[in-house]
Amino acid sequence: MSTQQRIRDYGVKVGKLETGNYNSITDVEGVTVGHVTLSDNETQTGVTAILPHQGNIFKEKLIASSHVINGFGKTMGTIQINELGTIESPIVLTNTLSIGTAADALIETMLDQNSEIGRTTGTINPVVCECNDMLLNDVRARMVTKEHVMDALNNTSKEVKEGSVGAGTGMLCYSLKGGIGTSSRLMEMHHGTYTMGVLVLSNFGILSDLKVNGKAIGEELRDAILQSREEKDKGSIIVIVCTDLPVSERQLNRIIKRTIPGLSRTGSIITNGSGEVVIGFSTSTRIPHDKPSSYMSVPMIHEEDIDLAFRAIGEATEEAVLNSLVTATHVVGRDMNERPAFKDLLKEYNINLT
Amino acid sequence: MSTQQRIRDYGVKVGKLETGNYNSITDVEGVTVGHVTLSDNETQTGVTAILPHQGNIFKEKLIASSHVINGFGKTMGTIQINELGTIESPIVLTNTLSIGTAADALIETMLDQNSEIGRTTGTINPVVCECNDMLLNDVRARMVTKEHVMDALNNTSKEVKEGSVGAGTGMLCYSLKGGIGTSSRLMEMHHGTYTMGVLVLSNFGILSDLKVNGKAIGEELRDAILQSREEKDKGSIIVIVCTDLPVSERQLNRIIKRTIPGLSRTGSIITNGSGEVVIGFSTSTRIPHDKPSSYMSVPMIHEEDIDLAFRAIGEATEEAVLNSLVTATHVVGRDMNERPAFKDLLKEYNINLT
Amino acid sequence: MSTQQRIRDYGVKVGKLETGNYNSITDVEGVTVGHVTLSDNETQTGVTAILPHQGNIFKEKLIASSHVINGFGKTMGTIQINELGTIESPIVLTNTLSIGTAADALIETMLDQNSEIGRTTGTINPVVCECNDMLLNDVRARMVTKEHVMDALNNTSKEVKEGSVGAGTGMLCYSLKGGIGTSSRLMEMHHGTYTMGVLVLSNFGILSDLKVNGKAIGEELRDAILQSREEKDKGSIIVIVCTDLPVSERQLNRIIKRTIPGLSRTGSIITNGSGEVVIGFSTSTRIPHDKPSSYMSVPMIHEEDIDLAFRAIGEATEEAVLNSLVTATHVVGRDMNERPAFKDLLKEYNINLT
Amino acid sequence: MSTQQRIRDYGVKVGKLETGNYNSITDVEGVTVGHVTLSDNETQTGVTAILPHQGNIFKEKLIASSHVINGFGKTMGTIQINELGTIESPIVLTNTLSIGTAADALIETMLDQNSEIGRTTGTINPVVCECNDMLLNDVRARMVTKEHVMDALNNTSKEVKEGSVGAGTGMLCYSLKGGIGTSSRLMEMHHGTYTMGVLVLSNFGILSDLKVNGKAIGEELRDAILQSREEKDKGSIIVIVCTDLPVSERQLNRIIKRTIPGLSRTGSIITNGSGEVVIGFSTSTRIPHDKPSSYMSVPMIHEEDIDLAFRAIGEATEEAVLNSLVTATHVVGRDMNERPAFKDLLKEYNINLT
Repeated sequence: MSTQQRIRDYGVKVGKLETGNYNSITDVEGVTVGHVTLSDNETQTGVTAILPHQGNIFKEKLIASSHVINGFGKTMGTIQINELGTIESPIVLTNTLSIGTAADALIETMLDQNSEIGRTTGTINPVVCECNDMLLNDVRARMVTKEHVMDALNNTSKEVKEGSVGAGTGMLCYSLKGGIGTSSRLMEMHHGTYTMGVLVLSNFGILSDLKVNGKAIGEELRDAILQSREEKDKGSIIVIVCTDLPVSERQLNRIIKRTIPGLSRTGSIITNGSGEVVIGFSTSTRIPHDKPSSYMSVPMIHEEDIDLAFRAIGEATEEAVLNSLVTATHVVGRDMNERPAFKDLLKEYNINLT
Repeated sequence: MSTQQRIRDYGVKVGKLETGNYNSITDVEGVTVGHVTLSDNETQTGVTAILPHQGNIFKEKLIASSHVINGFGKTMGTIQINELGTIESPIVLTNTLSIGTAADALIETMLDQNSEIGRTTGTINPVVCECNDMLLNDVRARMVTKEHVMDALNNTSKEVKEGSVGAGTGMLCYSLKGGIGTSSRLMEMHHGTYTMGVLVLSNFGILSDLKVNGKAIGEELRDAILQSREEKDKGSIIVIVCTDLPVSERQLNRIIKRTIPGLSRTGSIITNGSGEVVIGFSTSTRIPHDKPSSYMSVPMIHEEDIDLAFRAIGEATEEAVLNSLVTATHVVGRDMNERPAFKDLLKEYNINLT
Repeated sequence: MSTQQRIRDYGVKVGKLETGNYNSITDVEGVTVGHVTLSDNETQTGVTAILPHQGNIFKEKLIASSHVINGFGKTMGTIQINELGTIESPIVLTNTLSIGTAADALIETMLDQNSEIGRTTGTINPVVCECNDMLLNDVRARMVTKEHVMDALNNTSKEVKEGSVGAGTGMLCYSLKGGIGTSSRLMEMHHGTYTMGVLVLSNFGILSDLKVNGKAIGEELRDAILQSREEKDKGSIIVIVCTDLPVSERQLNRIIKRTIPGLSRTGSIITNGSGEVVIGFSTSTRIPHDKPSSYMSVPMIHEEDIDLAFRAIGEATEEAVLNSLVTATHVVGRDMNERPAFKDLLKEYNINLT
Repeated sequence: MSTQQRIRDYGVKVGKLETGNYNSITDVEGVTVGHVTLSDNETQTGVTAILPHQGNIFKEKLIASSHVINGFGKTMGTIQINELGTIESPIVLTNTLSIGTAADALIETMLDQNSEIGRTTGTINPVVCECNDMLLNDVRARMVTKEHVMDALNNTSKEVKEGSVGAGTGMLCYSLKGGIGTSSRLMEMHHGTYTMGVLVLSNFGILSDLKVNGKAIGEELRDAILQSREEKDKGSIIVIVCTDLPVSERQLNRIIKRTIPGLSRTGSIITNGSGEVVIGFSTSTRIPHDKPSSYMSVPMIHEEDIDLAFRAIGEATEEAVLNSLVTATHVVGRDMNERPAFKDLLKEYNINLT
């Protein structure tokens, strides 16, 4: 990964399981991530794109599922994911008011790649997720263009920059600067070793609720920096989950619901004004767009194997949120609004996370 | 099947697809049905049991799903079916106030068959469905005993008696006598011919809404027999669906929702006071209770094959309801309440169904 | 309404309840509808906009609910509707590949009307629904612009044109030309007379399944015109429901599910490739965007009153679909593909609907 | 409350909000709880009953909702709660294999209290929840009788005994002895002060996951007592929630989902074999069984008020679980299986919770 200092570099070890090589969603074979960052005065926003595999995702779909933790959000594409149990497009993250633009760009990209869409076969289900970055970003200006979205889609890699980048550029978390974070876990089963990867776009929580591995860091910091200022930040989180574990869409849905314990352990109470949506997919099986001559045979773990996946996703989600916090940089944006970087505060107040 | 006159014997051919050999839920290999009928003055009730296969269903579970069309009902077992995607017990149908007894009997039966339950493995999820037969039956007396339930479970066969039998003994449908009905459809696909079987416990609707193959028979009959009497019957329907089609639990859920078009074509508007619940299972794959050493491989049709199953289940549901109506016999029950037999009225008023 | 011949003009009376004055969704006080129609050779598409009330819908939200009948669709906005139980934007209908553009236009419109969005209050949840008109329309060209969407939003009225207009311009239904249809029903209760209004964008079904008031008109027509041609049309339906009945969001959800019996009575089997989504709202209560000083008091019918609403919505949905069919005109579009007008066929083959 | 030492007596203060007077579910006016405890060698089980109000709950229903956190469970009654948004019976908790008996007893009790059930009005929806106590209890023997259930229903009070009592007699939690726990929080709003009450039947988790206010007590204890013993306990939790806050059933559903952060903060990862079900009700409005002449007017908070309820329920759930743990006593049961009392271990190993 990059040279950013992540939560483990602060001595914090989350959970019991081992991480993958990059400790990133890209530890799952075939997954890549791209960012376009727009950071200039009033404009503090961007786009993050996730490619579920490197082939033609419309032609070779993946088993997928979504879960709405809290629905004060505008994520697109979940109706079809849930009905058909598959994902057939990349995933684009951006700010709330740019979802139309992002959807349009994603549709155009898919049309370009698949000349039969709208001719000899049906349409495409674009998956677009969002959080609201209005405090730091002039969200009304809708500075994200189709070209930005396409740039993000066309420039993905296994190296995932975290913090104030891409869609995370203007996001807040626990009243601090938030944004993109990622993490992964290995799952050793009798029949193989599998990977669970998580990427978050963090934009939720109030400072005094923040916990790091159970330690009430938020209360400590609030006393230090906020004093009597009332805490009112609202927010959201998008969680993208992927795994190479062979699971059915029902099993995958059970797994992605277990992001909630991970979020909760960082202090989340899942507030009203928060769009909290999870999109998950498994790279284990490719479901062909065109009907084969016979039925398919889908690999699927026995339900007794699933607890390890439940543990893995909770740990990876918790760590991804902490990574998003600790890598984010101080941002001054719209109307000179600003949010401090967690890492700067840790240094300034000499706070030990362990 | 039995010698009962069914809807096809009246010249009514429902839909476009061919039926199975028995035109019954038991056309699906391994499925059997048993009834215990309690018909004596104030007592007009009973039990119907469905065995999903002839082996040990706890040890070899089947992929299953449930759908609540309208939830004014007390069906038990759906929470676990939906979470785990499997059924692990026979299905018992009875009257609303006997569900406790039925559950207890089903639990006892499963304990007898599986000495490891509650010792070296967990518990059992009993599936009990109900309708309210209070007009004809003294439902408060709760005359169904554990022995009745066990008798139904122990005496199943491929021959399914319909109408005023088993759990259908005291049920009403479209203000006429209703009860048990069944039907099936064949689905010819490139990779094989499959069967869709449906069994209903019908207990819903008002006479003037009844349609037979689009013909407004209910209005005709109401004018003849009800005159100014207000129609207030309420009710419910339980639909048990089985198929040997290789489907995932998500696909099965999509399929069983398509019982609604079938019910609607008989005239249902799905009223408030109606418990309308569908339980479906596929015999295509047996999911072992004990974890195998590797992952499983589950056969599953491509989504493009599913329309034929949607058509099949609608037709079979529609025909099963009509079979329940036309086979039911005149019953006089509690407080001399009575409901006429559809077949008697057809003869009396010389009504042609085609 | 307009001078179009509707299904009642053909002698077909659907159901038992009386219609409203216009027999239209606009019979509900405050509701208006606008169309922009793009019909020119390869371009056969458009936009339809529904205003839930004539005030500021963001500031005064309405109780709302959504139901996915079949999720092969891309409708936007349902996640927040279901979480918060309210709608806060107009509803826009268009073709599948124009949802990004429609969302963007709707967002821009709401921003223009509400300068506090993204500044002192949060964001806006745009509701956009779609069907796929690719047979008659060059859907890949995405000819719908933001201006078209705004035109539709800015030019609504109580007069609703039906058939091949607005978003319905290029849609098919039962292998015939489909599109926009509307209908309403009055509900007389002890405490007042209420209206149930329905507007559909019809784009589903195969000819041989079409039923008109139970009569198998589709089979008759297929024998006449299709002969041995295989039927493969796929499709979708969007149903917009509104009422002035005082209902909670749970009750409204129960009501809008009863569109399915109405659709089923026209012959639908709810096929796989169909995006079938219902959005409903009640004008009975306005929920303020800004928190009042005390709790609110929400009027809500007793559950025993709801059956009349169930009957009303089924009838209005059935009639709206038939209106969309019988008002649509013959359209020749992309690649000279065409679909006949139902009304032309009725004349040509001298078919009587009653 | 009783003289039991609760988690606050150990110096642990959970969360930010004040508790009610008893720090119990019975702080909500009208709510009472009763236990029947069966503790004798192989029999370690029982019944716990909750009365939602002291009137006739069938005649005056309460707004209610349910949420399945994990569905490996057999809870009865949720289908109707979710459809109608009301609860109409007391809630009974017991062991998994006694649900039939419990349902039967609850039905009988309701019939005795309401002579019109099954005569002039419909039936009753019994709500029965369960956890599996098979390690300590001979669950196959099904020692719970109808009389035990009725005793629990007939002997409720505002004093709630916690730990190894009632349905909690044989339950485990985090590999220690678990059982019944309760807690409450006050919610101060502009329009009044409201109470959120929670009662849990805890039976889940493995020791090494246990956290007390963020402190990894479980790991500490595991090192002390378990050493190399593999942790395999499975389990469940039932959470009963009540409040006098005026909420719609949708709002209540949002609230009760926020039990998950509370459970997660004690260390739960929501394992596969766990039946985790929440039943909630609000005492704010009584919904009459019989239809009134007009519509009703239901008080309901503005959505902006709900965050305080989200915080309250998370805190109360967390504390209720900890109370169930710290009040439970050492139990030796079936086959001399045993589970230690948390409080004994704290003393033995001289562990400080703060």
